[in-house]
Amino acid sequence: MTETSKVTTAPARPKFLRKGEQTRAAILDVALELASRDGLEGLTIGLLAEKMKMSKSGVFAHFGSREDLQIEVVRLYHNRFEADVFYPSIKEPRGLPRLEAMFARWIKQVTVEIALGCIYISGAVEYDDRPGAIRDHLVAMVQAWRDALERCIQQAIEAGHLRPEVDVSQMVYEMYGLILALHHDARFLHIPGSVERAEASFRRLIGSYRPQGSDSLSSTPAKHSKSAARKAA
Amino acid sequence: MTETSKVTTAPARPKFLRKGEQTRAAILDVALELASRDGLEGLTIGLLAEKMKMSKSGVFAHFGSREDLQIEVVRLYHNRFEADVFYPSIKEPRGLPRLEAMFARWIKQVTVEIALGCIYISGAVEYDDRPGAIRDHLVAMVQAWRDALERCIQQAIEAGHLRPEVDVSQMVYEMYGLILALHHDARFLHIPGSVERAEASFRRLIGSYRPQGSDSLSSTPAKHSKSAARKAA
Repeated sequence: MTETSKVTTAPARPKFLRKGEQTRAAILDVALELASRDGLEGLTIGLLAEKMKMSKSGVFAHFGSREDLQIEVVRLYHNRFEADVFYPSIKEPRGLPRLEAMFARWIKQVTVEIALGCIYISGAVEYDDRPGAIRDHLVAMVQAWRDALERCIQQAIEAGHLRPEVDVSQMVYEMYGLILALHHDARFLHIPGSVERAEASFRRLIGSYRPQGSDSLSSTPAKHSKSAARKAA
Repeated sequence: MTETSKVTTAPARPKFLRKGEQTRAAILDVALELASRDGLEGLTIGLLAEKMKMSKSGVFAHFGSREDLQIEVVRLYHNRFEADVFYPSIKEPRGLPRLEAMFARWIKQVTVEIALGCIYISGAVEYDDRPGAIRDHLVAMVQAWRDALERCIQQAIEAGHLRPEVDVSQMVYEMYGLILALHHDARFLHIPGSVERAEASFRRLIGSYRPQGSDSLSSTPAKHSKSAARKAA
């Protein structure tokens, strides 16, 4: 069991799947792996059937169409991202500790994806000029994660961990940039130390948004940062 | 004529091309357009021949192979990027003015590519796990641009426009992140105001790296920022 199993708010994977559901879940697992490697557009029923040692019609029996399958892959990726990054992070106290947990787990996720490929990042490039249901699902799910980040930053402002004038969307944009650049530098350019660079930049980013007088470069803010921030305000 | 034609250091496009060279240049123009839209891997001799109203063998006569054509497209993109972004910027004084010019033109370039697609950004995702000559050319050209940015930042440090302890590679990483996020937000998520956001974040970034006491949020640094920085040091 992973650490996410402790999170009661996370949608638990049903323990006992019927045979058909088991097969469907197994197909989706392999489909996600293939799509991470070759892109969602590289995903074909033929390749999937070959990998699963099934007939094409056997795969089709579980998914109405290739597009349905692609959308289910996006959903699966999103659910796993939530389970691995979002749910464990919201166990942390509201505000900066939670935001730091979200970013740290996000980086960890990207680190895994440096080898495997990332559906969100490659999908953004695959579908940026390709309207349709797959793109709509991808956008909705990326947007859901950004909304979660925005809420968390807003709470950090309310808790006095970040300055009241912080532009929430601007900060999310900057965090997103650090993640995209990490993925780019590590996966495409093979630059060593990219993870440490991303972590250092995030500390710089947080520092630049913290209230005057707070320990601006601490990655583990003092317990009393809230009152410290109020004193400084 | 574009503004780049004024730059004497830019490699000028020969004015009189022989017939064969003209055809080759015309094919490459269309190939770049197609590759920007569909990705380098989406570029096929067949599609190109159709667009050019030529036979496939007619296209092949100008390029030894599909891979050669793809590499020539990467080179053409790089040459245009240099002509539009790099060469006009190095007319600015060394240091921060030049760095700001480079970033401003880079943003302008991405703004055009929000509609057209970007070979470097989509290529990074297409080839991040696909070794070979195309990937090698893409990496070399992205790296050349990053080296130019690093040199410029180093000069800005030497001129006293940026703090001596600035980590040059870290700063390039952060600038790259802003550009990748701009491309992502504007092209994939269709978020309005993304360009202004990128500009604001760049000003914040520069501000955080400027010497104490200098006008940290000015996008057009004072003429005497060098001496001001020295006084502050």
